[in-house]
Amino acid sequence: MPSPSRGKSSRRNEASRRAILDAALALGREKSYAELTIEGIAARAHVGKQTIYRWWPSKGAVLCEALMDLDAADERDTTAGSPESDDLAADLRRTLSAAAADLTDPHRSEALRSLAAEAAMDPALTAAYGTVLDGPGRDAALHRLRRAREAGQIDGDTDLDIAVDLLWAPMRCRWLYDQGALDADFTDTVVEVVLKGLGWTRD
Amino acid sequence: MPSPSRGKSSRRNEASRRAILDAALALGREKSYAELTIEGIAARAHVGKQTIYRWWPSKGAVLCEALMDLDAADERDTTAGSPESDDLAADLRRTLSAAAADLTDPHRSEALRSLAAEAAMDPALTAAYGTVLDGPGRDAALHRLRRAREAGQIDGDTDLDIAVDLLWAPMRCRWLYDQGALDADFTDTVVEVVLKGLGWTRD
Repeated sequence: MPSPSRGKSSRRNEASRRAILDAALALGREKSYAELTIEGIAARAHVGKQTIYRWWPSKGAVLCEALMDLDAADERDTTAGSPESDDLAADLRRTLSAAAADLTDPHRSEALRSLAAEAAMDPALTAAYGTVLDGPGRDAALHRLRRAREAGQIDGDTDLDIAVDLLWAPMRCRWLYDQGALDADFTDTVVEVVLKGLGWTRD
Repeated sequence: MPSPSRGKSSRRNEASRRAILDAALALGREKSYAELTIEGIAARAHVGKQTIYRWWPSKGAVLCEALMDLDAADERDTTAGSPESDDLAADLRRTLSAAAADLTDPHRSEALRSLAAEAAMDPALTAAYGTVLDGPGRDAALHRLRRAREAGQIDGDTDLDIAVDLLWAPMRCRWLYDQGALDADFTDTVVEVVLKGLGWTRD
């Protein structure tokens, strides 16, 4: 990513950065991950390959940042946000539905799938993928479960990282292997079974 | 796969088939999926590329069958098998532990991971992967849950395909993205939370 600086050169950097990320997203939608190349991104963005390599180590890193940027823009667009309520089940259903909507959004689904596949093979990208793309939703779920535990609403002894896996992984695997719909029936059932398994009962 | 026939030609076919599958497994352990090629498999197996293409459409299909063969051989070796008992939790823990042992077996872990990543990108392989590699364990879990439902041991209304996702996907995602151990603590917790969520109580 271009380091912050001032003046004309900074504006040129930002314009190049934006062009590179847009090119990566566009090509991520049109091509398979294997077909996506730094050369192709450079050509589409009208920059030299070296400009890309100066800022990112791999095509996966470029795509990861492009998708992260898209997420950030989305959050700015969403005036409602995802405020936490007093209803644990409703909060988790909202978090899962938002993630499911991201995964199935036609503007990013193919790029996300490519990245998810590549991340399974590349430890550097695994970490970036986990942190950037999976992380925020998982963190929100973990935070919400902790709050419920502090309020004595769920069992005190279950490993909450595993509880988050139970909420998150079924959606992730269904999507990755096209094994079923990510509709409200699905996410609602996941939340219902997991919360019951954690000893939660609606007040 | 060579079609069944008789005599010398059949034995030659079987020897070539065995050599190709062994070569695919060996290379699957040594190389990344991207580096694995039909040419490489043919060279290692001392057969022509056309021999491979006559029987399999892609390197993924070869690797898939090689891993399936390995599973079948394992099952023949296992005298104990996985008999069902009257203890639902114990049966599911055994099914999950066996799958976790497969995923972390050093002889097949890398090849399985490559295939899992590739299957996410290739619909033909997704189906093969789902049927051949994920299928048997998921089917065993589904079958066991159905028996429990018939016996009135779990809730009657939860979609059992989602219940199987809940048992299976956390292990699958942890393994794919290296997000934690697949030890007994993990599989036991998954089984415990899901069964409680399905309304199961030990008699």
